[in-house]
Amino acid sequence: MNTFWKSFPDVERSLTETCELIEQTLHTRNEDIEEALVTLARSGGKLLRPAFFFLFAQLGDEEKQEKQQLLKIAASLEILHMATLIHDDIIDDSPLRRGAVTIQSQYGKDVAVYTGDLLFTEFFTLIADAMNGSEFMKINAQGMKRLLLGELDQMSHRFDRRMSIPAYLRSVNGKTAELFSLSCLEGAYFGHSSKEVQRLAKRIGRHIGIAFQVYDDILDYTADTETLKKPALEDLSQGVYTLPLLFAYQAAPDVFSPYLDKGRAITLEEAAEVAALVNDYHGVTEAQAFAKKVTNKAITDIQQLPDGTAKETLLSLTELLLHRSF
Amino acid sequence: MNTFWKSFPDVERSLTETCELIEQTLHTRNEDIEEALVTLARSGGKLLRPAFFFLFAQLGDEEKQEKQQLLKIAASLEILHMATLIHDDIIDDSPLRRGAVTIQSQYGKDVAVYTGDLLFTEFFTLIADAMNGSEFMKINAQGMKRLLLGELDQMSHRFDRRMSIPAYLRSVNGKTAELFSLSCLEGAYFGHSSKEVQRLAKRIGRHIGIAFQVYDDILDYTADTETLKKPALEDLSQGVYTLPLLFAYQAAPDVFSPYLDKGRAITLEEAAEVAALVNDYHGVTEAQAFAKKVTNKAITDIQQLPDGTAKETLLSLTELLLHRSF
Repeated sequence: MNTFWKSFPDVERSLTETCELIEQTLHTRNEDIEEALVTLARSGGKLLRPAFFFLFAQLGDEEKQEKQQLLKIAASLEILHMATLIHDDIIDDSPLRRGAVTIQSQYGKDVAVYTGDLLFTEFFTLIADAMNGSEFMKINAQGMKRLLLGELDQMSHRFDRRMSIPAYLRSVNGKTAELFSLSCLEGAYFGHSSKEVQRLAKRIGRHIGIAFQVYDDILDYTADTETLKKPALEDLSQGVYTLPLLFAYQAAPDVFSPYLDKGRAITLEEAAEVAALVNDYHGVTEAQAFAKKVTNKAITDIQQLPDGTAKETLLSLTELLLHRSF
Repeated sequence: MNTFWKSFPDVERSLTETCELIEQTLHTRNEDIEEALVTLARSGGKLLRPAFFFLFAQLGDEEKQEKQQLLKIAASLEILHMATLIHDDIIDDSPLRRGAVTIQSQYGKDVAVYTGDLLFTEFFTLIADAMNGSEFMKINAQGMKRLLLGELDQMSHRFDRRMSIPAYLRSVNGKTAELFSLSCLEGAYFGHSSKEVQRLAKRIGRHIGIAFQVYDDILDYTADTETLKKPALEDLSQGVYTLPLLFAYQAAPDVFSPYLDKGRAITLEEAAEVAALVNDYHGVTEAQAFAKKVTNKAITDIQQLPDGTAKETLLSLTELLLHRSF
């Protein structure tokens, strides 16, 4: 785990235990796979999903909570996230993830396919263990489905010049916001919060997830490889047209068309030119304004939560998402 | 569905309904994916896993059975199988599956990765719907995990000259026998059979699964592309050393070593030479004898099941597996 949570010791403690459970869970008889997975688990992911889960659990009734159940669910959320990362890296042919070589580039796509699958089964095992008989078994299954439909949507729009902002948002809603929403909702539910807090949790998670993804997409147009730890402008050369580009393209389609015509053949230099043009045509600032608006919706909802440390942490954390440069 | 079940009208009826449910389930908002999946579902798989499931359900107490529950579980078994087929085809770079082009070769590995994942979620959704709260949620999760560990085992032994027969069997036990065993056990359990029938079902499924895979591996050394509908000798050039080769290699390592030294570079002609040598050194007959022995174990157990049509069908079906040439 990285140092991100130092200022939130409550969260940090829970996440440390979650990491231990994740590493136990990742133990398999195949040593290569185990090593690759533990490396991925340790390589500095911020564990945002388990963190939101625990913060919403803190809002509930501590006396009714079962610690082992909460830990298993927190671990399940991160493991589902890891599974999708591993499969995303196959699709993207990404050499790096969190500054470390991806499973796909180290062991080949074959191992990466089955390793991601194996994590799906670990996710499933953890929730079958922690919440069998609860309506959340089905909610998890539906969430996992929406997540994948979001990925498939994104893929079907690759290199699609007519890709619209609503289509982008629909994909983000599935591939990123769904799991944030599920994390918050499950925290509220299994932490024994009121129905009203559960309702807010679900919506807060969704808005945070959308804002998070939009910021992530903005970073592709503003950060360099070193600070971001993944190759900048990767999305563009993969034909994934994200919000900054979509806003800029809307403003000046003729400026961007010649670049987009190149498809996969776009060079690094040309991609850098596109990034500069996206900035010139206010794509980045408009996307930032959009993310800010969505974040503010989350903040308004968070302010309605019961007072306490968890609420304060949620507010700080959500503000942090607006100003991150990592 | 193909014509395989014509002589078993009871089974055929249940499987027709299962196919309808599968096609409903495969409905997604992504038309390409839906079409690819429906094609795969329709392209003549024998639906062996749902068939064994229904046969074992028939042994139970019909009055206590819930038809919709049984259909959902039967569909879940086939869908889990389809998910693994799609991901296997990525690993194998297979152009054909069941005589039709694979999703991987038609739409690319990217679509194939997520399409397989999507089927995992459909599997999960179906069982969360049909058996939430049952101990079988966990049994399914564990089964899915063993299945993937079997695939990973097989992969880690690719081009491995020291691959042993026990290692081969361990992989087969996971990647094929697990799902047959689960199908039979779930049929017995959700069909409300006695504990004793459930115990037999699990073991019968495992033995049938092992025999089935060994026969499938034998076909790679005896069938041609046309009758098998998949490229013959594919396993060999992929470095997957199966039972016929392992037996023959044990008998004459020096004969096979020069071929295996070539690894991936082995030509079609050389692979055909290896196939002939595997026959010469009794690899095929020994593998056949092995499969026959395992099938006989299944038959001995089937004979202990309660008398009736289901038992007779199970006997005929298991005998069929011994003489198939498709």
